[in-house]
Amino acid sequence: MYELREPVFIVGVGYTRIGRWFDKSARELFAEAMAKAIEDAGGLKPKALVVGNMTSGYLMEQESLGALMADYSGLRGIPAFKVEAACASGGAALYAGYSLVSSGLVDVVAVGGVEKLTEKLTEAATFALAMAADREYEVFYGASFTGLNALITRLYMDKYGYTHEDLAYWALRMHEYASYNPYAQLRKKTTLETILKSPVIADPIRLFDCSPIGDGAAVAILVRGEEKAREVAKAVGRDVLVEIAGVGLATDSVDLGSREDLLTLKSTVKASREALAMAKLEPGDIDYAEVHDAFHVTGYLALEDLGFCGKGEAAKLWREGRFGKGDKPEINFSGGLKARGHPVGATGVYQVIEVAMQIRGDYPGYKASDPETGLAHNLGGVATYSVVTVLRRWR
Amino acid sequence: MYELREPVFIVGVGYTRIGRWFDKSARELFAEAMAKAIEDAGGLKPKALVVGNMTSGYLMEQESLGALMADYSGLRGIPAFKVEAACASGGAALYAGYSLVSSGLVDVVAVGGVEKLTEKLTEAATFALAMAADREYEVFYGASFTGLNALITRLYMDKYGYTHEDLAYWALRMHEYASYNPYAQLRKKTTLETILKSPVIADPIRLFDCSPIGDGAAVAILVRGEEKAREVAKAVGRDVLVEIAGVGLATDSVDLGSREDLLTLKSTVKASREALAMAKLEPGDIDYAEVHDAFHVTGYLALEDLGFCGKGEAAKLWREGRFGKGDKPEINFSGGLKARGHPVGATGVYQVIEVAMQIRGDYPGYKASDPETGLAHNLGGVATYSVVTVLRRWR
Repeated sequence: MYELREPVFIVGVGYTRIGRWFDKSARELFAEAMAKAIEDAGGLKPKALVVGNMTSGYLMEQESLGALMADYSGLRGIPAFKVEAACASGGAALYAGYSLVSSGLVDVVAVGGVEKLTEKLTEAATFALAMAADREYEVFYGASFTGLNALITRLYMDKYGYTHEDLAYWALRMHEYASYNPYAQLRKKTTLETILKSPVIADPIRLFDCSPIGDGAAVAILVRGEEKAREVAKAVGRDVLVEIAGVGLATDSVDLGSREDLLTLKSTVKASREALAMAKLEPGDIDYAEVHDAFHVTGYLALEDLGFCGKGEAAKLWREGRFGKGDKPEINFSGGLKARGHPVGATGVYQVIEVAMQIRGDYPGYKASDPETGLAHNLGGVATYSVVTVLRRWR
Repeated sequence: MYELREPVFIVGVGYTRIGRWFDKSARELFAEAMAKAIEDAGGLKPKALVVGNMTSGYLMEQESLGALMADYSGLRGIPAFKVEAACASGGAALYAGYSLVSSGLVDVVAVGGVEKLTEKLTEAATFALAMAADREYEVFYGASFTGLNALITRLYMDKYGYTHEDLAYWALRMHEYASYNPYAQLRKKTTLETILKSPVIADPIRLFDCSPIGDGAAVAILVRGEEKAREVAKAVGRDVLVEIAGVGLATDSVDLGSREDLLTLKSTVKASREALAMAKLEPGDIDYAEVHDAFHVTGYLALEDLGFCGKGEAAKLWREGRFGKGDKPEINFSGGLKARGHPVGATGVYQVIEVAMQIRGDYPGYKASDPETGLAHNLGGVATYSVVTVLRRWR
């Protein structure tokens, strides 16, 4: 590995409330997040922008998203481009932005994500999300994205002997956490009965097992070198510096038919190993994590493949209360994709800034137990992409 | 600037013929280009992939392009993502790929571009291309992408006193060059009369003033450090190493209404200054360049804003024969977007590998006069994006 790299820090974060923003366009959401991030960084203006987004071509009929978001945020002219990696677009944008800063090409980089799923009817959004799957091998034959995840859920239940009720505790806890989260899309607690009786979307997945469709934008500002990070922290009166200690991105086949094992998120295993190795940490060293729970089963598989528990154990341990307050790691206090919401290309950025704020100690929702290390896990497709970002309190 | 950077080299190039490939899908085109690039690099396998593409969401109804192209090219699992910057998606992918290699995150990176414009009817392609413009401020009101460029052409003619015939020499020469190019889309010479009598697309732009709609894929393989580059060159019996000496990416407003001056490609001025400064070169030092001539006027403005001639002079000088064989710089011997073709997200990658091959001395078409320095200029939208890449023969 190229060892001359200077450390990279997150010095500003901004985000919108997640919701169905029929009255706001993507550029308005993005500019709001950017303005907050710049304020959070003591007025430091980004010199480049990477924007994560998946569906703008189909749903907004708009490309040129990098330049558009830069311009509407008052940053006309800076280097900017969009990164797409399905639902991991935000995480991949962070990976690309990290390398821009780390390489020395640009010294202050904004990594943003934005998604506007409510621009057309919900049917169009569902179709657009299925573009994460293989158009020629899967979608053409009628598969929806929820349908593909339903296959995996069924396999998980069959292999490890879980019932629908066993799995339903994911949503229960996510709604509980999100009730503390001022920017979450679903801020109401729910009950086991509500979850179990919610309509079937693609058997065995029910409505309350799925993340909702919503819009949102999030921005993180990255700088290179301790000196610069300290300068920003001092200007805004913050004590804690948050370092990006490791990044990992891995892929898998897009179509599920080519996979060796549908119950292992192989790309997650690879990406997390890479990110943790770069940070010189083990899974057991992580205090806090945000994992990608597009569906309940995705959350469980993530816990297993990130090395936080053994294969097949996650749903059992979760039902018993593991991964909650005071445990190690604490998981998804934002409410996760399930209840904080899942504004696709922005999700990976939300996760990273949530972990950063938990480490800083100023998270506005359910607070973690003063974590020193944190991890964000962002999936695209059915783990066609995994992006893992490891954050650490500096010194 | 961060001075510890090791040089980055292009060690392999591959591409398909450009055309209307109704019988091939994007993944097939891409895998062909990748296989050729790996062969050209003596079998060196990329460890990450950045894919430039603009329209896959709308025209192919397919995202997850990074993983899809990696997998179909036999590289399942490697870090991969798509970059979108309208028609500069290929150039922006190179910019992102350069930073991945340069940062030390990955040591062998493939930068590819692919576009499949013939997946739906031509009307759909025209609509998809207009997503480079502002959906809310321009396209909603009926503007097409050619229409916006027609405004600029009219202004250029009015301000500098050019006739349609004055401008038509761009296409004449591009068709001439492309007649030597085995992978060009339009490989026939044409006549001034044909150009002048071709149908009006958006007055004053006629059919032969426009680049055609076509499909294609191109890949460049990048490595860090002279040692690695030399190892590859030795394996394939090549003497010349091609260094990426400078990269620059700049943006402008998406909508034309916000511009100060429609006849200056401000982002091109900025991006080329940045790339040339990084390479420690001046415009006058460049021996060979591929410039982005989506329309004749774009080519002329590019020559002016890259600093190769004064404002308003390009069409006059061009008509007089400047920028041809033996001149400095020599321009677009590929035939340019006009006749080599413009497979949108792949175009920027084609340009870079054309310049690289001219420097290596093994370009398969019309040969430049043994250039030592070269420049690729890739635009997105009406210069909403400019990416400038400076290449140089090593030592």
